[in-house]
Amino acid sequence: MSLIFNREILFKTILIKRSNKLTTFKMAKSSFEYVKMFELDDTLLPNSWIVVRLDGKCFHKFSEDHDFSKPNDIRALRLMNYAAFSVFKEFHDLLMAFGQSDEYSFIFKKHTTLYNRRASKLLTTINSKFSSSYVYYWSKFFGTYNLKYPPTFDGRIILYPSDENLIDYMKWRQADVHINNLYNTTFWNLVLKGNMSPTQAEKRLCGTVSANKNEILYNEFHINYNNEPDIYKRGTLLLRKIINNQDTNKTYTVIVDIHDDMLKEIFWKEHSTLLTVKPSKQNFIHIGPITDIIEEQLKLKEPSE
Amino acid sequence: MSLIFNREILFKTILIKRSNKLTTFKMAKSSFEYVKMFELDDTLLPNSWIVVRLDGKCFHKFSEDHDFSKPNDIRALRLMNYAAFSVFKEFHDLLMAFGQSDEYSFIFKKHTTLYNRRASKLLTTINSKFSSSYVYYWSKFFGTYNLKYPPTFDGRIILYPSDENLIDYMKWRQADVHINNLYNTTFWNLVLKGNMSPTQAEKRLCGTVSANKNEILYNEFHINYNNEPDIYKRGTLLLRKIINNQDTNKTYTVIVDIHDDMLKEIFWKEHSTLLTVKPSKQNFIHIGPITDIIEEQLKLKEPSE
Amino acid sequence: MSLIFNREILFKTILIKRSNKLTTFKMAKSSFEYVKMFELDDTLLPNSWIVVRLDGKCFHKFSEDHDFSKPNDIRALRLMNYAAFSVFKEFHDLLMAFGQSDEYSFIFKKHTTLYNRRASKLLTTINSKFSSSYVYYWSKFFGTYNLKYPPTFDGRIILYPSDENLIDYMKWRQADVHINNLYNTTFWNLVLKGNMSPTQAEKRLCGTVSANKNEILYNEFHINYNNEPDIYKRGTLLLRKIINNQDTNKTYTVIVDIHDDMLKEIFWKEHSTLLTVKPSKQNFIHIGPITDIIEEQLKLKEPSE
Amino acid sequence: MSLIFNREILFKTILIKRSNKLTTFKMAKSSFEYVKMFELDDTLLPNSWIVVRLDGKCFHKFSEDHDFSKPNDIRALRLMNYAAFSVFKEFHDLLMAFGQSDEYSFIFKKHTTLYNRRASKLLTTINSKFSSSYVYYWSKFFGTYNLKYPPTFDGRIILYPSDENLIDYMKWRQADVHINNLYNTTFWNLVLKGNMSPTQAEKRLCGTVSANKNEILYNEFHINYNNEPDIYKRGTLLLRKIINNQDTNKTYTVIVDIHDDMLKEIFWKEHSTLLTVKPSKQNFIHIGPITDIIEEQLKLKEPSE
Repeated sequence: MSLIFNREILFKTILIKRSNKLTTFKMAKSSFEYVKMFELDDTLLPNSWIVVRLDGKCFHKFSEDHDFSKPNDIRALRLMNYAAFSVFKEFHDLLMAFGQSDEYSFIFKKHTTLYNRRASKLLTTINSKFSSSYVYYWSKFFGTYNLKYPPTFDGRIILYPSDENLIDYMKWRQADVHINNLYNTTFWNLVLKGNMSPTQAEKRLCGTVSANKNEILYNEFHINYNNEPDIYKRGTLLLRKIINNQDTNKTYTVIVDIHDDMLKEIFWKEHSTLLTVKPSKQNFIHIGPITDIIEEQLKLKEPSE
Repeated sequence: MSLIFNREILFKTILIKRSNKLTTFKMAKSSFEYVKMFELDDTLLPNSWIVVRLDGKCFHKFSEDHDFSKPNDIRALRLMNYAAFSVFKEFHDLLMAFGQSDEYSFIFKKHTTLYNRRASKLLTTINSKFSSSYVYYWSKFFGTYNLKYPPTFDGRIILYPSDENLIDYMKWRQADVHINNLYNTTFWNLVLKGNMSPTQAEKRLCGTVSANKNEILYNEFHINYNNEPDIYKRGTLLLRKIINNQDTNKTYTVIVDIHDDMLKEIFWKEHSTLLTVKPSKQNFIHIGPITDIIEEQLKLKEPSE
Repeated sequence: MSLIFNREILFKTILIKRSNKLTTFKMAKSSFEYVKMFELDDTLLPNSWIVVRLDGKCFHKFSEDHDFSKPNDIRALRLMNYAAFSVFKEFHDLLMAFGQSDEYSFIFKKHTTLYNRRASKLLTTINSKFSSSYVYYWSKFFGTYNLKYPPTFDGRIILYPSDENLIDYMKWRQADVHINNLYNTTFWNLVLKGNMSPTQAEKRLCGTVSANKNEILYNEFHINYNNEPDIYKRGTLLLRKIINNQDTNKTYTVIVDIHDDMLKEIFWKEHSTLLTVKPSKQNFIHIGPITDIIEEQLKLKEPSE
Repeated sequence: MSLIFNREILFKTILIKRSNKLTTFKMAKSSFEYVKMFELDDTLLPNSWIVVRLDGKCFHKFSEDHDFSKPNDIRALRLMNYAAFSVFKEFHDLLMAFGQSDEYSFIFKKHTTLYNRRASKLLTTINSKFSSSYVYYWSKFFGTYNLKYPPTFDGRIILYPSDENLIDYMKWRQADVHINNLYNTTFWNLVLKGNMSPTQAEKRLCGTVSANKNEILYNEFHINYNNEPDIYKRGTLLLRKIINNQDTNKTYTVIVDIHDDMLKEIFWKEHSTLLTVKPSKQNFIHIGPITDIIEEQLKLKEPSE
């Protein structure tokens, strides 16, 4: 109500002020300030899941310019995870993040009021922190290999009203990893080890189903696709977990990077509290092998928030 | 029309597919793909100016953490300009960019159809490229002085229907530079040279107008504010200009960084073609002293686009 | 994709065509058709409840101009219900409608794809049909008493992601009826029977709670508020129900107007299928006294959809 | 700012209140009031033309159900104009309205702050008043011929940033009248006087241009299309004009309905002040033959606003 009132007053004030000669910068500024009114409200619907998905722009070229290994470059994937971790650490209202290839999805707590749920604010702060982190931590994973130019990630916001929709979103992105990775693994084996040209490999794979690709890998390259690393087959999920340091008998909230199968219902049963309960109330869950991300946090030995 | 049709089909297909047992990942993926429908269209109104403004998040702390000189750190300003230049170079539909302190505004050509004017795409690609460039080019301006952590910039999009609105926006941001810089210059002289505490300096300046601050600077610190560098007093405007290399007799489109007074009507008269004509049709305009940005482009000696 | 393509083509075509002299109206029309591009998409988020609420504009004056009885005019309420019924009958995707005083809320099935969930279409068709029906059916309830001028209703759309939110919305509107009706009943008894001026009545009620008002009504006017008609105390809910005509042994889907207490959990338990199942699958539910609305439908004796 | 604060407070308050047992309706209401937060802001961009266009829903059927004359029913067109006049009279911020067939466009003053430029409010009040007026004034034009059911109009809002865009919109709608009316006039003459079936008439007209249709009308039915009434060929434009009553020597602002050719540039030159100056500053303009609309206003003899 008061906002509305001020707006009208402001507008009238402007019209009056404009006709006077400006005497100071302050007056000058105030006579242009009406342009602030053109910023429109972009508050997101309450009680719905907010997903921010980032995608690398022209990353096909970027990966060639930086000699990424094919079909997967573990350094590049770990850098993506680390940039996401850098975002996750800063925004406590993030519940999950899921990444693969050159994309990362960030999921906020359903009831987050961060930036009053303003779409632009949520979208750009995640996007910016991820982008700057990607460059900042490049050498941590690529050592002295130079980053040739600053990369660009685009971003979008999607709302999901129900838990089922959100879970289906997570499954959709993970099913995408499966399909792409099986294709890419077969394709690049045909090219790199099978001495096919990319065009020949593409033709060979045209019309094949999963079973066919598995067979090609097994029969021709002695690769059991099931034994491929989970990070390649399933992407990476970031979550917050509480762990107990037995030396100090203190609990810590750490961010963990896991590669579980989210397409199986058991995953969502085991993580049933994830969508409903605050992370700090979760019980201890075995977190598997120590990764860079966890190790770094354990070193800090900071008490749980 | 066809889009709408597909949507409904898709929705019905989903409902059917869900009830079947999934046999392959491809089927799995397609049964979750309905979640794409939740992405809503955010196309911006045609025939209106699109402004993307970025602001540093918590840059007060960031500037302290990195020992920025007060009231202005020329390295930090030049880095901001360079990051903006990096964005400007990549997005040919950008017409102008104006920066000061920790903020930068990017103005697209009125009729741009880049990304079909989708708000998220325009906002995030500018935001991301700027953020990654800030880190990438840090050492170019700060040398061996370490960047302690990746910075974050938020961003917003504002539409302006008329040229007058856009010009007033530019004036508004530049009037802001004037006010802030005069205040900060006086404040920091009182603190750094006048041995006042920040609280004392704040009190001293409370209620003063421009004339008072000019007097303080002149009488107490022998500083003629008019002689302060234009980059501090007026911020930086990036534009495209055509220059003629007399050695080769070729023309080049270069991005120039100028510090002109946009509050004066003469600026807009002299740049009257800016808002109406494509940059490539502009006449040659003397571009003043060679800066990092121009020098770098001239080295490239690439023919004008 | 094709849409986007056409758009750009269209835009370019326009620019070319404009410069030619128009020779026929068809050409003339096509050269202006670009203005269609300014219509932006307003599709509503899928999988969320769509509520359209209409409110009478200046109905305080309207009710005075038409000598509505105070505190409630049964003719006016029945006309509101009948206009809502007219809307409800036409839009099969409406699940519920709730009305009181000069407002009516319409709730669409969660998964409706009517008008592809375009906000303006949904909002205006409901709003228009209601408004025209209000005038059309006026004499059905007011007889020869003249409608003095056409009334105006404004409308808005609100989305609710969860069933709980929607139920709370319904409760909120019904709690509003309770509060207003108790106040109005007491106020108008003080004025009409207690010979108080409106100002005196207002003062008397200032700061009173429900219990106080109940006491005033009972002690001073021998009115047991609990015995007031439910339509006054609780407003009107429209639903679709299936009834069995025992003469013909056929089932009919009829729209019923009920006045149940939606604030009690038992209501939502008894109507648990309402939010989840299609109306046509509901079991028979006793529908209480025959109202105009039901009677009219029974006369039609049309088989259930 | 205070709004934001209240929101968070409200949300927290709700969570607390919910767990308590509700004791009064007021408390009940306040615990559900959080659902108000789901109403999102839909303020329209300032400094742009707001066009509200209404279209009859299923008016092909409606016109058949009410035996409208073909190709044009003058009663129906005059009723449309009168309903639009009823809207125009109520909303002083309306600058123009243009109607044809079963559609009407309403154009607000560029700087209107009516309802703080909230899209839903502007859209629905126009839509509702028009719809209720259509029914209310039916008998004024159709006499004792009964309206069989309440009609429905849908509505949409379109923004135009520049005067040129708005003028092109007006031209687009009028070019549409030309094309449709020439086609319909020829089609119905072929059917009604030429004894063709609708299918035959359609075939005959397939592929014809304006000139062909003019020839058919002239050669076969002795109709000079140029002599057809302007209201059929050009639709109706509502404007406010000031007229001088010579008897009383007073000026009046009246709403006039004109049928000028908006496709000609001279129209916009003669009305150059229309888009820039308030109607009350317009000079007297001869308003042509007295229509129902003007006559009615003159009878009122109210002084100009």
